[in-house]
Amino acid sequence: MAKLWGGRFNESANELLDRFNASITFDKNLWEEDIQGSIEHAKMLYSIGLLEIGELDYILAGLKEISEEIKRGNFSFSLDNEDIHTAIESALSEKIGQAGKKLHTARSRNDQVALDFMLYCRKANQALQKILSTLIQTLLNIAKEHTQTLMPGMTHLQHAQPISFGYHLVAWCIGFKRDIQRLRASFTLSNECPLGSAAMAGTPYKNERENLARSLGFESASINAMDSVAQRDFALDLLYDIAMIMLHISRLAEELIIWSSYEFGFVQFADNFATGSSIMPQKKNPDVAELLRGKCGRAYGNLMSLLTTMKSLPFAYNKDMQEDKEAVFDSVQTAYMCLEILNESLKTLHINKANMRKMCEVGHLVATDLADFLVQEYSVAFREAHHITGICVRYAEEKGLDLSKVDIADLESILIRELGDTITINKNKLASALSLEDSMQRRNSLGGCSSDEVKRQIHAIETWLDI
Amino acid sequence: MAKLWGGRFNESANELLDRFNASITFDKNLWEEDIQGSIEHAKMLYSIGLLEIGELDYILAGLKEISEEIKRGNFSFSLDNEDIHTAIESALSEKIGQAGKKLHTARSRNDQVALDFMLYCRKANQALQKILSTLIQTLLNIAKEHTQTLMPGMTHLQHAQPISFGYHLVAWCIGFKRDIQRLRASFTLSNECPLGSAAMAGTPYKNERENLARSLGFESASINAMDSVAQRDFALDLLYDIAMIMLHISRLAEELIIWSSYEFGFVQFADNFATGSSIMPQKKNPDVAELLRGKCGRAYGNLMSLLTTMKSLPFAYNKDMQEDKEAVFDSVQTAYMCLEILNESLKTLHINKANMRKMCEVGHLVATDLADFLVQEYSVAFREAHHITGICVRYAEEKGLDLSKVDIADLESILIRELGDTITINKNKLASALSLEDSMQRRNSLGGCSSDEVKRQIHAIETWLDI
Amino acid sequence: MAKLWGGRFNESANELLDRFNASITFDKNLWEEDIQGSIEHAKMLYSIGLLEIGELDYILAGLKEISEEIKRGNFSFSLDNEDIHTAIESALSEKIGQAGKKLHTARSRNDQVALDFMLYCRKANQALQKILSTLIQTLLNIAKEHTQTLMPGMTHLQHAQPISFGYHLVAWCIGFKRDIQRLRASFTLSNECPLGSAAMAGTPYKNERENLARSLGFESASINAMDSVAQRDFALDLLYDIAMIMLHISRLAEELIIWSSYEFGFVQFADNFATGSSIMPQKKNPDVAELLRGKCGRAYGNLMSLLTTMKSLPFAYNKDMQEDKEAVFDSVQTAYMCLEILNESLKTLHINKANMRKMCEVGHLVATDLADFLVQEYSVAFREAHHITGICVRYAEEKGLDLSKVDIADLESILIRELGDTITINKNKLASALSLEDSMQRRNSLGGCSSDEVKRQIHAIETWLDI
Amino acid sequence: MAKLWGGRFNESANELLDRFNASITFDKNLWEEDIQGSIEHAKMLYSIGLLEIGELDYILAGLKEISEEIKRGNFSFSLDNEDIHTAIESALSEKIGQAGKKLHTARSRNDQVALDFMLYCRKANQALQKILSTLIQTLLNIAKEHTQTLMPGMTHLQHAQPISFGYHLVAWCIGFKRDIQRLRASFTLSNECPLGSAAMAGTPYKNERENLARSLGFESASINAMDSVAQRDFALDLLYDIAMIMLHISRLAEELIIWSSYEFGFVQFADNFATGSSIMPQKKNPDVAELLRGKCGRAYGNLMSLLTTMKSLPFAYNKDMQEDKEAVFDSVQTAYMCLEILNESLKTLHINKANMRKMCEVGHLVATDLADFLVQEYSVAFREAHHITGICVRYAEEKGLDLSKVDIADLESILIRELGDTITINKNKLASALSLEDSMQRRNSLGGCSSDEVKRQIHAIETWLDI
Repeated sequence: MAKLWGGRFNESANELLDRFNASITFDKNLWEEDIQGSIEHAKMLYSIGLLEIGELDYILAGLKEISEEIKRGNFSFSLDNEDIHTAIESALSEKIGQAGKKLHTARSRNDQVALDFMLYCRKANQALQKILSTLIQTLLNIAKEHTQTLMPGMTHLQHAQPISFGYHLVAWCIGFKRDIQRLRASFTLSNECPLGSAAMAGTPYKNERENLARSLGFESASINAMDSVAQRDFALDLLYDIAMIMLHISRLAEELIIWSSYEFGFVQFADNFATGSSIMPQKKNPDVAELLRGKCGRAYGNLMSLLTTMKSLPFAYNKDMQEDKEAVFDSVQTAYMCLEILNESLKTLHINKANMRKMCEVGHLVATDLADFLVQEYSVAFREAHHITGICVRYAEEKGLDLSKVDIADLESILIRELGDTITINKNKLASALSLEDSMQRRNSLGGCSSDEVKRQIHAIETWLDI
Repeated sequence: MAKLWGGRFNESANELLDRFNASITFDKNLWEEDIQGSIEHAKMLYSIGLLEIGELDYILAGLKEISEEIKRGNFSFSLDNEDIHTAIESALSEKIGQAGKKLHTARSRNDQVALDFMLYCRKANQALQKILSTLIQTLLNIAKEHTQTLMPGMTHLQHAQPISFGYHLVAWCIGFKRDIQRLRASFTLSNECPLGSAAMAGTPYKNERENLARSLGFESASINAMDSVAQRDFALDLLYDIAMIMLHISRLAEELIIWSSYEFGFVQFADNFATGSSIMPQKKNPDVAELLRGKCGRAYGNLMSLLTTMKSLPFAYNKDMQEDKEAVFDSVQTAYMCLEILNESLKTLHINKANMRKMCEVGHLVATDLADFLVQEYSVAFREAHHITGICVRYAEEKGLDLSKVDIADLESILIRELGDTITINKNKLASALSLEDSMQRRNSLGGCSSDEVKRQIHAIETWLDI
Repeated sequence: MAKLWGGRFNESANELLDRFNASITFDKNLWEEDIQGSIEHAKMLYSIGLLEIGELDYILAGLKEISEEIKRGNFSFSLDNEDIHTAIESALSEKIGQAGKKLHTARSRNDQVALDFMLYCRKANQALQKILSTLIQTLLNIAKEHTQTLMPGMTHLQHAQPISFGYHLVAWCIGFKRDIQRLRASFTLSNECPLGSAAMAGTPYKNERENLARSLGFESASINAMDSVAQRDFALDLLYDIAMIMLHISRLAEELIIWSSYEFGFVQFADNFATGSSIMPQKKNPDVAELLRGKCGRAYGNLMSLLTTMKSLPFAYNKDMQEDKEAVFDSVQTAYMCLEILNESLKTLHINKANMRKMCEVGHLVATDLADFLVQEYSVAFREAHHITGICVRYAEEKGLDLSKVDIADLESILIRELGDTITINKNKLASALSLEDSMQRRNSLGGCSSDEVKRQIHAIETWLDI
Repeated sequence: MAKLWGGRFNESANELLDRFNASITFDKNLWEEDIQGSIEHAKMLYSIGLLEIGELDYILAGLKEISEEIKRGNFSFSLDNEDIHTAIESALSEKIGQAGKKLHTARSRNDQVALDFMLYCRKANQALQKILSTLIQTLLNIAKEHTQTLMPGMTHLQHAQPISFGYHLVAWCIGFKRDIQRLRASFTLSNECPLGSAAMAGTPYKNERENLARSLGFESASINAMDSVAQRDFALDLLYDIAMIMLHISRLAEELIIWSSYEFGFVQFADNFATGSSIMPQKKNPDVAELLRGKCGRAYGNLMSLLTTMKSLPFAYNKDMQEDKEAVFDSVQTAYMCLEILNESLKTLHINKANMRKMCEVGHLVATDLADFLVQEYSVAFREAHHITGICVRYAEEKGLDLSKVDIADLESILIRELGDTITINKNKLASALSLEDSMQRRNSLGGCSSDEVKRQIHAIETWLDI
């Protein structure tokens, strides 16, 4: 961007206006979809007799040539050609003359734009699904190595229960799994091809929209031409899906940042995913995770942008809708890049098991287990069990120890005092109740954090991914 | 709301805090879901031997009693009971004593909240699907009466082509059809039951989460307990689905408002859906349509609110997530009411066919048809056909007539002059090309605006609705 | 944007990462501010003895050279230099060696970034103020020609009272006037210079931050260094100010679009501000107004983007904040261009006075005036006056006339019948009550729509602009 | 909210509609402003002869009576009276008959609504300013006690430099100070009274709008009546100001939550500001801070809601604008309550100075100071100084010590080895360079973190508050 308020006024009002109206600076991204749509449209026109075989051949050859020029970087996207559709149309006419113009029978700019953009969104959707699968697999691979790695499970950023690091990673995966499911649902919602809707009222030609739709990968032709050129639901759906992906990324990025602090010390990014300091060799800023977190704003903003633009627009097409593309391009690019970067950064993430284990010994994480033990072994009422556990915890606090570290004999004495001396304490079971590992392993029900159950969860997700 | 900065400080800091922390003022909406969840949870506990039959009976009877008290308005939702779950739990304990407490085995507040809220969202989802179906059927019923009612089809709020009012209504329906599809997809995305996830790590009990899930209408139990209590995707999905519904409503409301203006005069709301004036008996403000349009803001705002709150929250549960409910309740209530009101208002909407027809005669809507006629009948090249049509339009402008109203003989002369006098003009075909009705009927391809095609579209949607 | 999911993986993970981390692709926009800041910083360092005069001379010469290279397009902004600050710093070191490094004494990247971006926002703020003034003056110039041009004043898009077109334009101006006031207020809120805050804790040098601040156009140095590098309020304020500008633009664009419809026919854009059709020479789509309306979404989205990114960031600087710039650059560019385009398009807007006048005769706009006449001349009670007016309006409706067009004698009869035959009607006053022009001119109180009062309003705004 | 899809259909369509249209359920909040406006309007009408003294007395007495009924809770806000203005108007007419109706001369509902709402926003604005001042004073009081309390200053959530806790608190204050300045600016932007604008075109009465404006606390009457009833800038400004307040709160809440973790252990909330556990007496969830952080979403959502609703509304009043109030009421209530709660919670926050101090000894926070020492004392070049410091840090790492804890003699040896044995090390200066306290105190320039400078900052803010 040149600074606008500088000497811009060499530009005439008309040049300014051209720049304001033109979309080619960004919709050139759609060149591939535009050519793809034109190829299938040409074939359809031939199939219903509106093009002769020679004309079709010219058109296909011309489009192929243009496609190669663009790939080689030899194609000029000038402002004169307002948008990518005009640019390609003009180039084609220059190359093959009159036949090029026939290509525009039985369609208009309105349905052409809708088609190109929808094709783009569908490709982006599938690309995102694929990179999400890759990311999930990376997470699961790490999780497999850490189904026994103890860490403090948190709620309210406070220690709650001992879990494994692998279990935590699986939790992250589930969100990304839903992201894939959401993308799939959106894909299905954009399964009706708009081509052949023309300006807004359909065409007088006996075209074969159903075949055309299928040749472009859609399930069917759209039902009503007016809706087809007036709606941008498919773009909004994609923007929302990406907002959700970025929300999920922001949450795990937040955790990675907190875990990278000196105070937590649970993880450390590899050198190339963190910024160091020449003077403090040990210092590493988790820049990548911070950017991943921060880019969530961009995805929300893009969603809000198009929601606002579409609000209360009368049917059918309005020029406001030209504002649909940049937001989508930016969100797609952002999400795709973030997923790739996240995937790479996780592969080389250093996990500090010792620190995770050590922090499990802070906060008396087994207090609930002790209470459960009393309820199950001695049929102590729930509230009473809590009361006694509280006494044990206070004892541990006085000793400056975590409950899991208190001498079993000391606890035995307390329990006998509280429960009556007719009671015998099963020391093995008490020790197991106070063991962090056993605590984690006991949570073996569906969805729980035991090693076996986490392995089952990993397997279930891998099976689902294979589908 | 009392004004906070007035004499509020009779309230102590602790009272203020209670009010700040409490959710019961709004989560009491979930009482039915909370009891439903507890009933199925109790049955499950009985099935795995954690409750005896007598205890189960007590619990079910107690919950039934509470349910009836709430329905009769005899239940006190006081701030002392912070949230609806505590309120019902306390009431149950008061009624049936110790057995009531056993109900809370193998679950925690975190999964209970997730379940209740998910059940609510699923019910709301289905209710919205149903009212959307009703609305679509109302629109289709009106559309059936207007497959021949000419109106100017617009792009850029400018006359583009003659279409029928029925065709326009079908276009509105497609958006609402996608809304139903989107809701269905979201329902599927919330098909995993969180109950039994407990605080975040699952439970040590050999519970039967799969059966429990199905008894509550879910497809299966959730895979990972930590995700289950940490995520609010299902609430965000619903908020987004509603934002899209409201976006669609805002667009048709905008059209109804513009059409209600004196200048358009296409439609008029029945008296009870418009505000009149004692002094100007003919005056009618389309208040209802304006409110329908304006409430789109609320739906967008609620979506943005929860997206923001969830951004970068560490796992698992955080108190921030208590902010999830009011936004959802408000959006659900808003959307449901708007759909009902819209449905009612359309039933009695007066359609001014004469004005719609009259405006078709402004803007030379058949100009494209004349050009097509020249191309098809006389193999005139596209560009040449446009040139000649331009001459005809200018002639009409000079006469102060719409092209569709110009004398056929006059046009014949012009065409012969331009095409050469060896040409014979088929007057019937020329007249048909210039006929507004014929123009509309010619667009008979899939998705087009001809009467037959619109009837087919209506039939297709009705068939779909029946599924 | 190359499509990311194509053959991107020629790029290594590290190249990908460089691209992800780098900001130079957009923050190069700040080159001028960066050099400006360095110049003043160097002078300050010299003034406190940390640079010798020779070193200062080298630095100033080096920076000047770089500045000229950039202006000439000879400067390479490569990804190797992550950001604009590094790029300029490296170039300087290459040119002048060791002295270049001394420039970075007593500042850090964190305060340098904050300064550069703040300087940019302040310049953008002032540029927007200026173009807004230009726009207001354009509107006032048109308003001056239309203080007598009758048009139907509307509420609910329904005719309400006769006003002048000039009066309507003045209403638009007031919003833009507030936009200028809001920008001024934001400018004042960003009046504290961050330079010298260093990383977050200030510097150990006895620097002269107050002088430095003033040399850069600020009112004073910032109070607390930690806030200075951690906050982006100034950027959010600008994004909000622009969101308001775009909101105001969207409202007048909406009116211009509606007024451009065939049904209204109040205005017509000049040919270069509308899109025509080769086949329908009279056809003009108000594309420019539609884009102006649609770009409101972008401004809202950018605001929401940065609000989200900044939410719940711990102090002080975090890499998330690198996401601040693109949103601001885009909003500034968008608003500035829209204001310019709007200004140009208004200058050549065709006003169809006849149609505006004609539509004043629809809707019985003088009904209120008739009631007022009865109250004032015959002391009829308000409610009774309304009743009688209702009778007159119904009479007009039956005759198919607007109340302002009904024969005075006919109304006289009705009034005498209703008020009693002892009453004499002053026909001149009655005629005046029913005159559209008189109705408009009667609203002569402060803020009203009479020609004199509108001229006073125009004068008041012009006087304010001069300040 | 009753569940809408339940048995709601006892309600007739008309009842549903009444509920949809009515605003009294929320705009009753404006009763005080409505009466205030009516009192001043009545006095003005009397002053220009449109009310007689007896009528004025009746009106004032009637309004006083209504005011007292509302305060006592004896006033019925029924749906029949659609909005608060109608409710009060009806009640007044019932009480005093005809005179009550005269009150509505020279104003309309449109300007009355604008006035009431603007008065509310102005009061809310001032109340927020006041509670912000209180909060700042609380923060400063705590800061005064901690100008020497060392804590690790962070960027990227990584240790950066030793600062004092007091310094950090002052950084928080600056954001709130800007919030007050922003509110003041918004107050100034809403300084023009809309009363007397009537429906949209002003009134024919020679009213005294300037005096009226001043009697209601405004600076002047609004310039143009159409803008006055059509704009809601003042409400949006307040919503934005509150979004910024909540953003600032979310950032410090995030820090408090992180600091409350076991791993950091920097602070602990008092018992009543945290949720405990019967079983784990030491456990405290920072619920209050989490809610403070989460409520940021609500403020953003409300801003987005009204921005959306106002987008592209034609002039002047539209019913959409009825959606303006709930968002504002909710944001005002939320912000006010959050500020109060935050203020209370800070007063009793426990600061764990020992843990803060201890964490300063992690991360070699004095590395920069050592490098500076080498530059200043031995004129070592910057890059060389960094190199030598790196050697020292690696030595410390090998010893398992923080740089600040390494034996001075050991470092002396390293330095002599690196700098050459002709050098004499000033041990006192070296010790000072490595002292955390000295490091903090050295940053004594404007804005820095030394105790003296922080005291100056506190004093500066207190002085400003006194204004």
